[in-house]
Amino acid sequence: MLRTIAEDDGAVVILDQTRLPRETAFVRLTSLAAAAHAIRVMQVRGAPLIGATAAYGVVLALQEGIALDEALAVLAATRPTAVNLRWALDRMRWALAEVPAERRLDMAWSEARAIAAEDVQANAAIGAHGLELLEALPHRPLRVMTHCNAGWLATVEHGTAISPIYAAHDHGLPVQVWVSETRPRNQGLLTAWELAQAGIEHTLIADNAAGLLMMQGKVDCVIVGADRIAANGDTANKVGTYLKALAAKAHGVPFYVAAPVSTIDFACAEGGRIPIEERAAGEFGAVHSPVANPAFDVTPAPLISGIITEQGVFPAGGLAAIRR
Amino acid sequence: MLRTIAEDDGAVVILDQTRLPRETAFVRLTSLAAAAHAIRVMQVRGAPLIGATAAYGVVLALQEGIALDEALAVLAATRPTAVNLRWALDRMRWALAEVPAERRLDMAWSEARAIAAEDVQANAAIGAHGLELLEALPHRPLRVMTHCNAGWLATVEHGTAISPIYAAHDHGLPVQVWVSETRPRNQGLLTAWELAQAGIEHTLIADNAAGLLMMQGKVDCVIVGADRIAANGDTANKVGTYLKALAAKAHGVPFYVAAPVSTIDFACAEGGRIPIEERAAGEFGAVHSPVANPAFDVTPAPLISGIITEQGVFPAGGLAAIRR
Repeated sequence: MLRTIAEDDGAVVILDQTRLPRETAFVRLTSLAAAAHAIRVMQVRGAPLIGATAAYGVVLALQEGIALDEALAVLAATRPTAVNLRWALDRMRWALAEVPAERRLDMAWSEARAIAAEDVQANAAIGAHGLELLEALPHRPLRVMTHCNAGWLATVEHGTAISPIYAAHDHGLPVQVWVSETRPRNQGLLTAWELAQAGIEHTLIADNAAGLLMMQGKVDCVIVGADRIAANGDTANKVGTYLKALAAKAHGVPFYVAAPVSTIDFACAEGGRIPIEERAAGEFGAVHSPVANPAFDVTPAPLISGIITEQGVFPAGGLAAIRR
Repeated sequence: MLRTIAEDDGAVVILDQTRLPRETAFVRLTSLAAAAHAIRVMQVRGAPLIGATAAYGVVLALQEGIALDEALAVLAATRPTAVNLRWALDRMRWALAEVPAERRLDMAWSEARAIAAEDVQANAAIGAHGLELLEALPHRPLRVMTHCNAGWLATVEHGTAISPIYAAHDHGLPVQVWVSETRPRNQGLLTAWELAQAGIEHTLIADNAAGLLMMQGKVDCVIVGADRIAANGDTANKVGTYLKALAAKAHGVPFYVAAPVSTIDFACAEGGRIPIEERAAGEFGAVHSPVANPAFDVTPAPLISGIITEQGVFPAGGLAAIRR
């Protein structure tokens, strides 16, 4: 099976997501600069995978003889919104700070490996908890809407928002997925590609169609991932998520966020304080107008029916109960 | 100045909007089949322009010796949602029904010409009424969001939703326009092209960004066009309009619909009865997944701050006051 990220003889090999779904190509990372570039240009993307890649980026930097602090600073500057990036870097810093120089590289490999392995476990648990929510919804096939890509491509394995869908499919629960295109970068095509590979029924829609489909009663629930969840439950995710949440609220459709606990920023009180990354106009293709291209938006906690984590499903306003 | 539609020596010349904004090309229509094709493939688009083109299509049919009833049936089948199409055809039928055969063609030219001329007048009046609403909003520059293209390209002249923006610009009211891309056909690029030609400041955004911009307080009002307005004020417009209306409601942003009275379908009680056109998957480009592509959605009347017509601005729930 394809992996988003894997170790390979002192290097780190990533699946180049800028070339999917047209072609399956890999990039071999051997330097801090290459790891930072991979995150910045979105060869790797998705909050959990960004975190794991950053952890491995620290390893590659140490291997090059670059100082830990410099490596952490370079990687922290790659993308501003996904808090898993900062979380993974903090964890590497903490793990390595007291370690003597001669043992640091080994310890770095080991800690990055642990971060990746824990992501796999967390996402599997998210799938199991999310499956219980899906099984409780009455319609068959169950029609789930998602946004962007929060499948295995966005993580080390399993995915976050799509993990419960994979679990449903594995358990024989018939499921159909509404996949929104996710302009301007079309990550919905990544989700469609993933679901096609897994043999899960899905339909691609324009982001614009989400409201109509909910009004027509064709959506049983929405599950999205997250790039950063504030302590009060406000959730930053790919731009357009908020519009789906508003429509879900208007039509009584359950709206779930699926994310590992590492996506929760307990130091960030509320969504208004989450930095929103502005990306380049070029993501729109060849246009001749000025462009505004915020990559994320913030869905207020009251619009969220629950946050599916590896520790279970929590009300968006009840994250204080989570063990950090 | 460019015209969307014009008579030319027994033919009708249209600006081919499928080639804009890349190139400015014209198509000379001389047959019913060509007129029906132009509407179906969206060489002409926008509810008022569809109506005017259909009226001229009847003329071309009569010129070919095709029976009136056949012409009306062929044109009525081109697109289902925009009621201006049916309105224009009903008007042609009514104008021509009692006319002796030898005078029918002359009368058809005259009635089609009147429909086009009245559209120009109606849209100018919409601009004047809308300008009063814009002047009453305090922020300068005034930041108006629109969706799809409801500019002069969507009409015979002036536009509907963009007509008040042109009026504001002409009156020295500083205005900036948020232009949403409008997937899957990208009619926002037509709006951006129009505004650039007129020297009006504008910024292209992904459809997904509308909610964030309103949350950030960067939108003073929304103005969109309409393809059909039910008697109760529920409004069908380009898919994605409803999501903008939900976000506008959530943030107290005034949300206006601008359309001539011919867009109101007094025979249609409420939005749930408006047929929603499903268009081809090919509009998404080369994708390998099943696609759902509804071209319109319905914004419930309670989300609409007012409907700007040539007769003035009406509450969405107060359309009964309009003179038919």
